[in-house]
Amino acid sequence: MSEQTNNDWLEKLNWDDNGLLPAIAQEQGSSKVLCLAWMNREALALTVKEQRAIYWSRSRQKLWRKGEESGHVQQLREIRVDCDLDVILLSVIQDGDIACHTGRHSCFYLKLENQDWLAVDPVLKDPALIYRK
Amino acid sequence: MSEQTNNDWLEKLNWDDNGLLPAIAQEQGSSKVLCLAWMNREALALTVKEQRAIYWSRSRQKLWRKGEESGHVQQLREIRVDCDLDVILLSVIQDGDIACHTGRHSCFYLKLENQDWLAVDPVLKDPALIYRK
Repeated sequence: MSEQTNNDWLEKLNWDDNGLLPAIAQEQGSSKVLCLAWMNREALALTVKEQRAIYWSRSRQKLWRKGEESGHVQQLREIRVDCDLDVILLSVIQDGDIACHTGRHSCFYLKLENQDWLAVDPVLKDPALIYRK
Repeated sequence: MSEQTNNDWLEKLNWDDNGLLPAIAQEQGSSKVLCLAWMNREALALTVKEQRAIYWSRSRQKLWRKGEESGHVQQLREIRVDCDLDVILLSVIQDGDIACHTGRHSCFYLKLENQDWLAVDPVLKDPALIYRK
């Protein structure tokens, strides 16, 4: 980033020992919670700069531009943080209406019923069609 | 817990190395995201059993029955988890309409504007009145 960039707002956050914070993506309008992923400083700075959700993939240990493969970009509308400055809340527009790699609208489709996790939301698009090369 | 309790649903979740998962509390009706806290197996089991949000306080290293001091209990309506089985989403009724220790409705009252975090939601009740003994 340029030397003129002011990073005070980034450093005010209480990044964890791994330099990460959880980031919730909530859909503007419906207010549905779409997913929770993780951000480091670079991911959050890029999210603001590019106005789309960019996470840090803990499994792949690299930046993850949400939608880079699927096209299901999350367009940024607003960023908030909580009172402890350690949780990020994004308000987004979900391209394609699909946030989940299973082809569902939200990642939170598993509901606790009768002591088990039941899939209660429909698959909107076959993942094989989303991720085909 | 009794020997007859079935804990398979708990063990299906991908608890982190500290035995914790992030839990988002979302208000039923308004769909506002109220807070994010952490749960271990015991906290989640008790949340289901007592039908109120019970978290694990990482700072105090003990169970935290949300509302135990403030009276601002989060009554459970539904529990979901995400596709990776590593994030919990609670749908709750927020007693007193206040989730935040600052006396605000939601903990997410700090909005990024002009490279700073601005408090954009009102304090509904003076914390000194909430937490007086």
